Parts: sequence; C-alpha cells; structure tokens
Amino acid sequence: MKAYDELNKEELLALKSQLEEEYYNIKTKGLSLDMSRGKPSVEQLNLTEGMLGILSKNEDVKAENGLDCRNYGAPIGLPEARKLLGDIVGVPADHVILGGNSSLQMMFDTVSRSFTHGVLGSTPWAKLDRVKFLCPVPGYDRHFAVTEYFGVEMINVPMTEDGPDMDLVEKLVSEDPAVKGIWCVPKYSNPQGYVYSDDTVRRMASLKPAAEDFRIFWDNAYVIHHLYKEEEKQARIPEILTECEKAGNPDMVYEFASTSKVSFAGGGISAVIASKANLEQIKESMSFQTIGYDKLNQLRHVKYFKNLDGVKDHMKKEADIIRPKFEAVESILGESLGGLGIGSWTCPLGGYFISFDAKPGCAKEIVARAKEAGLILTSAGATYPYGKDPLDSNIRIAPTCPELIDLILAVKVFVVSVKLVSAEHFLKEL
Amino acid sequence: MKAYDELNKEELLALKSQLEEEYYNIKTKGLSLDMSRGKPSVEQLNLTEGMLGILSKNEDVKAENGLDCRNYGAPIGLPEARKLLGDIVGVPADHVILGGNSSLQMMFDTVSRSFTHGVLGSTPWAKLDRVKFLCPVPGYDRHFAVTEYFGVEMINVPMTEDGPDMDLVEKLVSEDPAVKGIWCVPKYSNPQGYVYSDDTVRRMASLKPAAEDFRIFWDNAYVIHHLYKEEEKQARIPEILTECEKAGNPDMVYEFASTSKVSFAGGGISAVIASKANLEQIKESMSFQTIGYDKLNQLRHVKYFKNLDGVKDHMKKEADIIRPKFEAVESILGESLGGLGIGSWTCPLGGYFISFDAKPGCAKEIVARAKEAGLILTSAGATYPYGKDPLDSNIRIAPTCPELIDLILAVKVFVVSVKLVSAEHFLKEL
Repeated sequence: MKAYDELNKEELLALKSQLEEEYYNIKTKGLSLDMSRGKPSVEQLNLTEGMLGILSKNEDVKAENGLDCRNYGAPIGLPEARKLLGDIVGVPADHVILGGNSSLQMMFDTVSRSFTHGVLGSTPWAKLDRVKFLCPVPGYDRHFAVTEYFGVEMINVPMTEDGPDMDLVEKLVSEDPAVKGIWCVPKYSNPQGYVYSDDTVRRMASLKPAAEDFRIFWDNAYVIHHLYKEEEKQARIPEILTECEKAGNPDMVYEFASTSKVSFAGGGISAVIASKANLEQIKESMSFQTIGYDKLNQLRHVKYFKNLDGVKDHMKKEADIIRPKFEAVESILGESLGGLGIGSWTCPLGGYFISFDAKPGCAKEIVARAKEAGLILTSAGATYPYGKDPLDSNIRIAPTCPELIDLILAVKVFVVSVKLVSAEHFLKEL
Repeated sequence: MKAYDELNKEELLALKSQLEEEYYNIKTKGLSLDMSRGKPSVEQLNLTEGMLGILSKNEDVKAENGLDCRNYGAPIGLPEARKLLGDIVGVPADHVILGGNSSLQMMFDTVSRSFTHGVLGSTPWAKLDRVKFLCPVPGYDRHFAVTEYFGVEMINVPMTEDGPDMDLVEKLVSEDPAVKGIWCVPKYSNPQGYVYSDDTVRRMASLKPAAEDFRIFWDNAYVIHHLYKEEEKQARIPEILTECEKAGNPDMVYEFASTSKVSFAGGGISAVIASKANLEQIKESMSFQTIGYDKLNQLRHVKYFKNLDGVKDHMKKEADIIRPKFEAVESILGESLGGLGIGSWTCPLGGYFISFDAKPGCAKEIVARAKEAGLILTSAGATYPYGKDPLDSNIRIAPTCPELIDLILAVKVFVVSVKLVSAEHFLKEL
C-alpha cells in the first residue's frame, strides 16, 4: 500500500469509496465501544479482591502504633501507610502526607490553597492580576481543567520524548514572575507514555524561577506502572525531591501519587510528597479542612500489600493484563496504518495511554466518525489546555478498560475512521 | 452545704484548705483522663463490626444500578447512598451530594469555593474587603476555625435554649451586606445540646439578607443522635430546605450531615444537602476537584444499614452506650455542685456534649487545674471564635469516649477543680 500523499485523485476516490463501504458495514453493527478514559478493567480490579474484606473484625482495626483506625486521629495518615506510599515514590515517610481516595483532589486543594493563602507566605494568588502555568502538551486534561477552573492562564510547552522542551521552560520560568507552576507527569506521561530523561529532571530541579512561589506539580501517577517485567524495559527517573534539594530548591516541588491504578480506581489512597516546609503548610491547612482522612482504607492497603515488594508483585499481575492490550493496539495500528503517512503513535513501556497524532486538521473529524460508528474516544483537543489542540491532530487512546476482544474491534473502528477522514483530507487538499 | 457566695472568709479558707487536700490526693494518683473531644468510644465503634467486612468478594461491589464501585464513576455518589443520607435528614435523594469521610471537609470546601469562585455568580469573597460570619456562642470550635483560617470576621451571637438570638441575627443579616454566613448546629447544638425551636428555624429560613450570597451553614451533625428512645424525648425540628423554599429563600442554606457518629468517626460518609441551584455549583466544582469520592464505603453503609429504619435501630444501640455516661456526669455534677452557685450545666437529650458555665473568670483556671491533676478538657475559650470567651466561663464536656469508670473519675477531678478555683475566686473577691 502506498502512502496517501503518493496517491492521485482517482486512487484516492477509489480508496474513499472502499473505506466508506467498510465504515458503513461497521456502523450497521450498532457497536458500543469505549476507549476514552484511563479506567482499569474489571479483570484488573478483581486482582485486589483480598483487600476488600481484609478488615472484618473489631480486632483488625488497629494501626501498628495501636491507634484505632475507626476513630478520629492521625490527621496526616498512618505511619505505615505513609511509609508504603513513600517507598513507592522513593522518599522517607516523613515527606509524605496522605489524603483521601484522590490525588487529583490533593492537586486541586493545593492550587486552591495557593489562591486563598499563598505559598509559604507569598501573596495569595487570588490577589494577583495574573497567574500562569506551563502546560506540557499534549497532557492530562484534568490537570488543565483544575487550572482553568481557577482562571489560570495556561501556556503550552511542547513535549519531546525526553519530557517538556526545557529551553522554553527555563526561559519562561526565569523571565516571568507570573509563572507560578508547571504540570508534569514525569514517568509514562499522559497521553504519550514518555519518560522524562535524567537531564530533564535535573534541569527541572535546577530552575531559577522569577517567582518565589513557583512550584512544580509533579504528578507521579504511573511511578510503578510498568508494562514489562524486564528491568531494562522499566523506566527509572531521578527522585525529584532529592534533585530539588541538591539544586538548592528544596521547596520547589509538590509530588503526587496514589494507588488508584494499583488497588481500586475509586477506592485507593493518595499522597502529597514535599519538603518539610511545604508539608507544614499543607498540614496546617488540612487541620482546618478535616479531622483526618479514612484510615481504615489506609490500613487495608498496608495489610494487603504489606510492603513495596508486595506492591511490585501486584503490579506485575496488573501488567500481565494490560500489556497484551497495548500490544494489540500497537500491532493493529502498525499493520493497518504503517507506511500510509496518515498517523503516528507512541508505544509506551508503561502508564495508561497511547498517543496518536493524525494529519493536522483531522483529529476532531476522526473522533466524530468513530463516535458515529459506535466508538467513544477522548474528545479531540482534550489533551490541550482549554480543549484546543492548535493542530487538531492529537487523539488519546486508552486501551485498559475494554476486554481484549472489544478492544481489537475498537481499534479497527478507529483505523477505518482515521483512513476515511485522511483520504477525504487528501482529496480536499488536491 | 451553703452557696459559696454566702460563705465568709474563714469558711472559705477552711473550704479551700480542704479542697487543696482533695486536689493533692487526686494529683498524686497520676491519672490520665480525657474529656476533651467528641469521639465515640471503642464500645460504640464495635457496634458496627458487621460493616467492616460486608464487601469481601468481587461480586459484592456492584451498586443497585450495576455500577462497579471499585472503579471511577458516580461523582456525586451512589443513588442508594444519597437516598440513605437524604432519609436521615428528611429530604429526597436529589437534594444530596455525597463527599468523603468528613462533612467538615465539605464545609471547608464550601467556604473555600465561595472565596475563590463566589456563590452562584456573586463576587468571589477573596475579592471583597470584608467577609463576616455570625457565630452563635458557645459553638463548635472547628466551625470557627474554618472561617478564621479564611480571614472571616466573626461576630458572636448569644445562644438561647431555643437557638441563636434571632432578633440580633435578623438585624445583622439584614443590615450588613458583608455578613455572608452563619454557623448553625440546629439540633443538640455543640456544646450545649440545645435544639432550635420551630420559631427559630422559621425565622432563620425567612431571613432577608442584605447580601445575595448570604448562606446558612446548617450542620445537622446530630440529626438522629438522640439519647432517649421515648418519642417525646426525641427532638424534631422543621426541615430547613423546605422552610427556606416556603419562605422564598430556596438557595439560602447549605446543610451538612455525616455518619461519623453513626458508623465510624474516621471512616463514615458525608453529605451536603441543598437546593438544585446550589448543588449544580457544588457539582461543577467537584467535577474539577475529584473523579469521585470512595463509593465502596458508600456501598458498605447502604449494605449494612439497609435503610433509615436500620440506621435508627443502630442509633438506639449507640444511645444505650452513651446515655448512662451523660446521666453519670449530670448526676455527679448535681450531687457535687448543686446549690453551690459556682456553675451551671446543660442536660441535653442528644448530641455529644454537655456545656458547663463556671463563674466568670474561672474557666481557664479550672481547665488548667484539671490538666495538672491528669484530666484533659477542651481548652477554655475553644467554644468561642478566636478561642476568646469574653466571660472566661464556658467549658465543654465530652462524655462519650472514656469508659464509664474513667468518666466518673474524670468528673470527680473536674468537680474538685471547679470547687477549688471557685473558692479561690470568692476569696479574691472579698
């Protein structure tokens, strides 16, 4: 098969007609498929069955220090659960504060607190005329939504395979005191699955911000979410708190993590990880917000996983379920679209997403056509601030939730949609 | 025994010397007692053992609508759990949004959101020069702490046995557009255990605020927390949403409730209850803050309690544990302090606290003496905004947590401390 840009008008018209038939055939099947969100599958969730009932008797509810987890107390979390989350991201427990079931909530609350109370004594952002955040793109829609909700001006920074364009980040951060933050998913980024290089991490930690209250929002959502068991296929990145400290910026980062894609997406535990000074402010704010998060669920996690090794063993089982799905998507995309010049995609070693770049100007139409044929994809543009992909090119593929058999069908619907829209695109350009 | 104000100097000196001996004898025992916080006792927590392990198999995790509670989804809560909380406060499920384990957090988030985003389109409070809240006193320290954290100017409003002084509330709310809210615990108030009268509730609902974004923060923390089983000893108050609607103020109230003192203090579920318009704003804000709260815990509550009758039956068992503690405190206070003119206290029919008023100027000293003798009480002043009780008189007694035998000892320590400080007080005044 020739690349689409080598086809003449007759060939394109013939191709289009053939694709329309394929598309029509699919449409009549009345499919209902979904590759839109990074949700674990039922099979994954079933893995953690043993955690559900691990506390069942009154004598099960004590923490290691004797604390009754059913009652009030331990506002920043159980020591052993703080240790578990600390071990997951590679920091000591005393750099960890636990939250509820959602790390997104901890990010939201951190932004909200910065608006109402400032950052370690700085002017509350609500009192400033402009607050800007750097947004590596494509990125995570819910990050961008938080800052949009607070009226933050978001500035796109292109992603590379090594992380955000650090020349641009350094320039913007050092020149503009209105730049208060940057959203980062450093390992297996959402949606590309890229891993920040050691150099990127170190340059990030060594930023010289114009704003004293500039913070890196380091969402380490996929820190242990490898797809492969081989050591050499498991990404490692330098630990950001240590790097910031080494660079003389100990307070410049808030790190976030959770077990949402380890135990239960809706019933995990979350953490914010930061310097002592930052944690003091968070702890103070939390002391007004709540008497404490759910320690029973923290205890369930510790009793079930026991330690980091327990978590890692579990993640291998998760990988065994997810990996074939990623490979199926990549294989079908390769077979169906390889060499056609109408799209490229990432083949991550971890995380929850594959990022697809269509010919510029085609993404929205592809998503619309897929939907018409019964396949829900993440909205085109969602991976950019304000939902605006300037090239209308990026589409996020979330392979984890559907069963393999549905996933294969879904990718085929996607492929036909991509081909059809691309053929029409080339015809228009003739 | 004569009242202290009828004693002459010699009598007071003799009394003081005798009390000092009693106090010294207690002190040498090295007690470690705590009546400071409204925590349920172990015995109470043990009642809900059956809820701990009620979800133990993968097939247990489905909501009534088939939703997998382990996964993302149902951002405002499971329909059946919303119904349960709605039934508890007496409103339909569609007026209920569920949160995490803490209704305090929902109050904090509501105040925070009002500061960053305003109330139904009003100017964000962070942009205003002054924001004021009315604080019925004595009241709940954590309420006052939230508004203090946000820099709100708090105005004391005296409590009566029928609720806040409504003449003053009506005047302040209608005259001053900076008054944006009032903290209320309408049933079995913290700390007095007073119940708002029907008239108070209706006048509250009929307020004509100068500020369009004025809101009643209606913390119905003890809505089903009766101490007695007899119907006539169970307080009933008009349902506030309905009253506000009748009065033409449908959006004027946010109501809060939780199961913190029904199931587990640290692992319950919470709710905000409001008009559709208010809920829309809360829902929008929550959609940025989280993908959803822990639905597994919501499901545990529904499966365990089943319905309102199940909850009510359970609350009778709670009452059987708590009631003897309240009665023991009241009985010892009556026997030891009755007729002495050195203190008065409330005898609530529900809730978690007894409020004690010492002779003005004595509360801090009583709390300090009790501490020295091994009894922790809530800090004197804590029941007032900024921790400042203008009369230095009010002390909150929390009888639920200690075992009965310790509680009796604790009240005896308290009584001696009250007597000793009061005797000294009268001596100084001679």
